[in-house]
Amino acid sequence: MKPLLDAVLLDIGGTLVQQAAPGTPVADLEVQLRPSAVEDLTWLAESVQLGAVTDTAIMDEQQVRGLLEPSGLADLLPTIVTSVDVGCAKPDPLSLITAMERLGIEDGSRVLYIGDRPEDEEAAERAGIQYLPIAGLTGDRDQTLRQVVQNWLERTAGHRFEEARARIGKANIEMANAAAALQGQLTKPPGALGRLESISIQLAGIAGACPPPVPEPACVAVFAADHGIAEWGVSPWPQEVTAQMVANFDTGGAAVNVLARQADADVVVVDVGVAHPIPLALDGDTKVVHRKVRAGTSNLAVGPAMSRVEALLGLDVGVEIAETAVAAGAGCLITGEMGIANTTSATAIIAAITNSTPEDITGRGSGADDEMLARKIAVIEAAITDLTTTAGPLTVLEQIGGFEIAAMAGLIVGGAAARVPVIIDGVIADAAALVAAQLAPDIVDYVIAGHRSTEPAAKAALAFLGIEPVLDLDLRLGEGTGAVLSLPVVQAAALTLREMATFDGAGVSREKE
Amino acid sequence: MKPLLDAVLLDIGGTLVQQAAPGTPVADLEVQLRPSAVEDLTWLAESVQLGAVTDTAIMDEQQVRGLLEPSGLADLLPTIVTSVDVGCAKPDPLSLITAMERLGIEDGSRVLYIGDRPEDEEAAERAGIQYLPIAGLTGDRDQTLRQVVQNWLERTAGHRFEEARARIGKANIEMANAAAALQGQLTKPPGALGRLESISIQLAGIAGACPPPVPEPACVAVFAADHGIAEWGVSPWPQEVTAQMVANFDTGGAAVNVLARQADADVVVVDVGVAHPIPLALDGDTKVVHRKVRAGTSNLAVGPAMSRVEALLGLDVGVEIAETAVAAGAGCLITGEMGIANTTSATAIIAAITNSTPEDITGRGSGADDEMLARKIAVIEAAITDLTTTAGPLTVLEQIGGFEIAAMAGLIVGGAAARVPVIIDGVIADAAALVAAQLAPDIVDYVIAGHRSTEPAAKAALAFLGIEPVLDLDLRLGEGTGAVLSLPVVQAAALTLREMATFDGAGVSREKE
Repeated sequence: MKPLLDAVLLDIGGTLVQQAAPGTPVADLEVQLRPSAVEDLTWLAESVQLGAVTDTAIMDEQQVRGLLEPSGLADLLPTIVTSVDVGCAKPDPLSLITAMERLGIEDGSRVLYIGDRPEDEEAAERAGIQYLPIAGLTGDRDQTLRQVVQNWLERTAGHRFEEARARIGKANIEMANAAAALQGQLTKPPGALGRLESISIQLAGIAGACPPPVPEPACVAVFAADHGIAEWGVSPWPQEVTAQMVANFDTGGAAVNVLARQADADVVVVDVGVAHPIPLALDGDTKVVHRKVRAGTSNLAVGPAMSRVEALLGLDVGVEIAETAVAAGAGCLITGEMGIANTTSATAIIAAITNSTPEDITGRGSGADDEMLARKIAVIEAAITDLTTTAGPLTVLEQIGGFEIAAMAGLIVGGAAARVPVIIDGVIADAAALVAAQLAPDIVDYVIAGHRSTEPAAKAALAFLGIEPVLDLDLRLGEGTGAVLSLPVVQAAALTLREMATFDGAGVSREKE
Repeated sequence: MKPLLDAVLLDIGGTLVQQAAPGTPVADLEVQLRPSAVEDLTWLAESVQLGAVTDTAIMDEQQVRGLLEPSGLADLLPTIVTSVDVGCAKPDPLSLITAMERLGIEDGSRVLYIGDRPEDEEAAERAGIQYLPIAGLTGDRDQTLRQVVQNWLERTAGHRFEEARARIGKANIEMANAAAALQGQLTKPPGALGRLESISIQLAGIAGACPPPVPEPACVAVFAADHGIAEWGVSPWPQEVTAQMVANFDTGGAAVNVLARQADADVVVVDVGVAHPIPLALDGDTKVVHRKVRAGTSNLAVGPAMSRVEALLGLDVGVEIAETAVAAGAGCLITGEMGIANTTSATAIIAAITNSTPEDITGRGSGADDEMLARKIAVIEAAITDLTTTAGPLTVLEQIGGFEIAAMAGLIVGGAAARVPVIIDGVIADAAALVAAQLAPDIVDYVIAGHRSTEPAAKAALAFLGIEPVLDLDLRLGEGTGAVLSLPVVQAAALTLREMATFDGAGVSREKE
């Protein structure tokens, strides 16, 4: 739920409880709950904030609370706003806006209002929030809230990803050619800038401009999530480390923070599926973005790691983070991640998509010994055996996970849709790029591989994508570190086109024929 | 001359002309020149500014000029200061200081005063300038100025280099070990930062501090010089390009300028042997440092490229530039160069020192075709055949050249002496590092290879030195571009030690045993 919503607001009469006949005295009101309402609100409260917004003839919040108290609903609704409290009834949006303010939410697109009447829908629209209709209670085989919300999730998950995917076009060949021609005019022997020249040409194609803008500022999105396979002992690190490292990212002490500060890049830390509580700073000054799909995937060795809806939600989160960063001015996106045991998942995805032999491409990740490595290989072999060779990328993602890999794939798609370069690094990012490229082949034009991981699967993935990495510094950390380290080189490529003198301009003679 | 001096000041009586008996009336004075004085001053004027500083009883500048006019000396001495002009005689230094002011020179260490009396020496000392004594004229087998100056040059060339070389110590092992231990405490799997970890350890050893300072600001010294071998057609580019590119460096339009601006590094352009006039900006706002040893080396295919004195002067220039940069605050030095045909010289040096087969290691430089490549190989084969296997590095340098290679070797030695890291790149810099390492083996501790050139000789040189390059971006431009591109990676290495959190500090769990 959290990938799409920060809060769910609910109408009361007809939605949570049966509507009383108009004019019923308060003392005579009897609360008839929607079936499993308490259980369903408890389920919702696990991932989002809840509130109630209701029209009443005479009751204020305290009276409504008194009425709902015995059913247990009142405790599940920290915020209740009535028309009496605000002085006007729906379709006026004031009660909804008041509820959002009380919850501290500014972005209406991340709030869902559930109601049963046309006035509810109109109020939601006027408040700028999403609306989900539910059939008013009749006392006879009424839908449950959970059914309605889950149907909505299934319909909505993947929309944001799909919209971004549909916007992706190929790189601009004309501008790429113009950049290649300009490189030939600059004061240096033809081709002497090597990879800087090819990157500059790619950047011109991405931006559709020659010279291309310098890809800055960059935004590093670090997606953190846990993997159920960790319980099978494929990593020497305890799973708590994922949560602990999120706190470390948040306070700026991890390697990616140090490198991003140096490179003037922002770091956005996204909890997209961390299993353990994050030990955030006590002062509450945290910037972690909460988009948890679930508290870790299921163990891929015993069943699918995630559901189709969860996979789509992960992709949506990545697109959202990309769109938010680009809207805030980012000229370059960088994929980062954290997740204990995620080299196992990434290697399995790469083996499945590139049809590689697990034994050939499985590495030691963050420090597996021989026994652990053998276990990783066995797990990966079993995981891909269950996948038919025609399994689509979403099926691969569902079976293997994880949430951060889905989100990174979404970030790549979101970046390509916005015609912004996306720098990837490491075996986890390479797996995400493979998934993204299966879903949207043109993303390859927008992806720059910042660094070649020492993991053998990384080599297989990049060869399959036909991408040559920029750096090779023996890093095997992830977090986006290798990609951030390559950022100055990528920016330098654009700068050569923008700032170097030409032979004619500088009065430098050409080579003899 | 220019590597050591901006100006030569000369005493007149006894030094340039025979001393008149005291009290001789002006009308009776006869000018008896030192043998070949006009030719020798003409020779000096080719590389330095000239001036005369003399004590006279009654003559001012105009009268002295009148007296010297017929001999031709007056035209060769744009500045003449007499004791009458300034109101006091030597050993008061005022006349010398006045002459320096007129010549626009601030740095007394780059001025040489030639005189024949103790007062001359004392005045020079008090003015803070160098002094060279010459025996007073007797009219009988007098020394020539050129003999005296050349003897001085032979005695003086290489002093600065030798002093720097003597100061070099090995890297600090204790601090390097401390850095390795600290890397093990940082929040990441052991070794996961790959090359960043080894570089950080090297930087701690260089600086003798853990964590080491971030190597900034960096100074890129671009040494430009020409090579006589260019006349044999080993490069597709005309030799004028060296001078034209110096102007391009000066106005900031070359690749190294663009990359240095991005990396916040200074660029110092040094003419250490450019053959053609540099087409500098008409507004005179140039920052080129003039340290020309000679206008290009001799053709290495027909004789030694340079003399021993010239080789030493080239080394001195490099040390001077290093010392000046470090004194101005540089925390990192970067070697850069420009010189048409210098891949031929560099490859020959590398072949000679590493005992490689020219055919195996000779590349196409800035674009040699097959015929040109064959010619390069033949030239290099002949050049190293003339060198015995026991030829010392100075002999190799003399035979092959060039001035910029000598200067880069000097820069490396100067950096190591100052315990500052020196980033090299490209086949020319690799050749210079080989020469430096033969002269001062401990420099290897201070050198970081920023980039592996595509020239095959570069690989041979780095393997011989036992240095692994940081980047491999297919550059083949020189100028220091590859080294500048690696600067952020080198700085990042220091930053990880300085800014990353430790496991204990961040409350992150360790791997299980």
